[in-house]
Amino acid sequence: MHSPLLVVLSGGTGSCLWPISRKTKPKQYLPLFGGQSLFQLTLRRNCFLGGSPIVVGNRHNYALSRADLSVTGLHHYTEIIEATPRNTAAAIAFAALSAGDDTLLLVTPSDLMITQQVAYETAVAEAIRLAADGHLVTFGLVPTRPETGYGYIEADGNAVLSFREKPDATTAEAFCDNGRFYWNSGIFCFRAGRFLEELARHAPDVYLASVQAWEARHGRFLPEAESLLIPSQSVDFAVMERSRDIRVVPAELGWADLGNLESLWEYFRVNNPQKFSPNVSFVQDNLVLGSTRHVEFIGVKNLIIVETPDALLVIDKSNSQAEKHVYERLETEWPELVEYLR
Amino acid sequence: MHSPLLVVLSGGTGSCLWPISRKTKPKQYLPLFGGQSLFQLTLRRNCFLGGSPIVVGNRHNYALSRADLSVTGLHHYTEIIEATPRNTAAAIAFAALSAGDDTLLLVTPSDLMITQQVAYETAVAEAIRLAADGHLVTFGLVPTRPETGYGYIEADGNAVLSFREKPDATTAEAFCDNGRFYWNSGIFCFRAGRFLEELARHAPDVYLASVQAWEARHGRFLPEAESLLIPSQSVDFAVMERSRDIRVVPAELGWADLGNLESLWEYFRVNNPQKFSPNVSFVQDNLVLGSTRHVEFIGVKNLIIVETPDALLVIDKSNSQAEKHVYERLETEWPELVEYLR
Repeated sequence: MHSPLLVVLSGGTGSCLWPISRKTKPKQYLPLFGGQSLFQLTLRRNCFLGGSPIVVGNRHNYALSRADLSVTGLHHYTEIIEATPRNTAAAIAFAALSAGDDTLLLVTPSDLMITQQVAYETAVAEAIRLAADGHLVTFGLVPTRPETGYGYIEADGNAVLSFREKPDATTAEAFCDNGRFYWNSGIFCFRAGRFLEELARHAPDVYLASVQAWEARHGRFLPEAESLLIPSQSVDFAVMERSRDIRVVPAELGWADLGNLESLWEYFRVNNPQKFSPNVSFVQDNLVLGSTRHVEFIGVKNLIIVETPDALLVIDKSNSQAEKHVYERLETEWPELVEYLR
Repeated sequence: MHSPLLVVLSGGTGSCLWPISRKTKPKQYLPLFGGQSLFQLTLRRNCFLGGSPIVVGNRHNYALSRADLSVTGLHHYTEIIEATPRNTAAAIAFAALSAGDDTLLLVTPSDLMITQQVAYETAVAEAIRLAADGHLVTFGLVPTRPETGYGYIEADGNAVLSFREKPDATTAEAFCDNGRFYWNSGIFCFRAGRFLEELARHAPDVYLASVQAWEARHGRFLPEAESLLIPSQSVDFAVMERSRDIRVVPAELGWADLGNLESLWEYFRVNNPQKFSPNVSFVQDNLVLGSTRHVEFIGVKNLIIVETPDALLVIDKSNSQAEKHVYERLETEWPELVEYLR
């Protein structure tokens, strides 16, 4: 069986880990993990696939992707450079159009942490088998806590029974106890042509507009005017929750969604960064990101300090969600503080 | 009546406001108050006296004193430079020996904040009158809260009834309600000769060793060997609590002892620093000292952030007393972080 082609989605913007992330330096490129970025870790995690990956990025970050690809030793790859973010359904459509109908694709976000490599490779092998039979495969993560911030997939073996919106706390507890509910990982495997068929069937407006943008591309660059006409829909909404041909591969991957500061705090509490990371430290239950200075804490805990030469953020980890409000305010009041890291 | 000669005591070390204060940059020289230091404010507060002040400092800080004197427009002054800290009894003895017996002295620490200038000048005038009659005068501050961290003076008019050690909370409440108890300000007024007489009577070992060190001085520099023989005693312990010739001038001076971070937090909460100070800000109930960056707080309050290019301190204001333990640990582990500010 042929290995699938890796598709790395890297269209994210920089609002999550400000001030170390900026519009021009999204979180997936920050070298927080033993000097490596999540983008680099994503490439290394999938090097067992071989082949030349497809990277779907945007005008603002493709140079960052190139640098990480080079560091990882990957010199042959396909770039798809979006003019404007149109969400994951369109991004995957571009990759599928680029690869050709018969190519198997393994689609992954570029900002996940997965620590169980053997389990991951085993799950990918199972996904390949199902995708080769024409199914659209999603990876279902065995929940490790009754999280209310994620959607859940109800499954029986590989068969999907239902997709569930973010539950309340009681429902989340029940999902965890039930044993048939999984978190949606954002990792998918399918044949390119099958994805496009299902997209065309369930979200024809997204499909048609994506094809038109693709056909108007200039080399690796997608055109802005045509791209703006594409409905901004997630692949979950446009395809996975509608198609009847979805399969699930349940897996325990040591997965961590490091999308906000609280999740980073939790990750580094367990994975002591002092052993391997130059710009991360975890001191007396406080996380420090980006500092090159000596930091002392007295009488405080559960804080996250994020610092750059031009800005300092002090946040209680339980208020992690409020960071985006500060970011939005700064976009208006101090745009230079969210655009560039000087 | 002649104005007294101002004596500024500036022997303090830098442990209180680390990391912006260092051994080589004690807190009284930090320009935290509209760009001015407490040392400068002390000089300006007393410029109504005229004359050429005596500054008692040490080998590590006299250059800082000179800079502040110059900025304040004072080019004529007497320097007494101690070889090693011997506490306030000896420091004042040196000033008295320098000034000559008949000279009236107004002795002040260099790290106090006094906001009620008219009340201060009125109190000084009353102190001069009492000191001219041969009394040793201390300024008694009307307490603004039942503080347990200070000593109290019980007085009836100008007469001292008793000195009281730091009280417990219940006693402090009673002191405040009583109306005859005052905080000891650390500001004194007396004739130089009367101070030396009382020091010789009540602490003859301090007096004799101070005279011997003084006689062995080299210009403005006191000798180390002789200085080390001086018992390290506070003027309160050596003289004020023992002499029968003490008088009190009660006063409401808008006094603040800015000796620790919590007191600075309280001061700047009331006196908004954003109006006038470049390296102090008070944001959402958090105090930021030393920063030149944009600082954001989310979900935290009552914090104090103190930062320099080489160090960052994050402290809850109620843990202010614990700073000295961190300082002592750093003296061993990272001595360069407490010595110099690079």
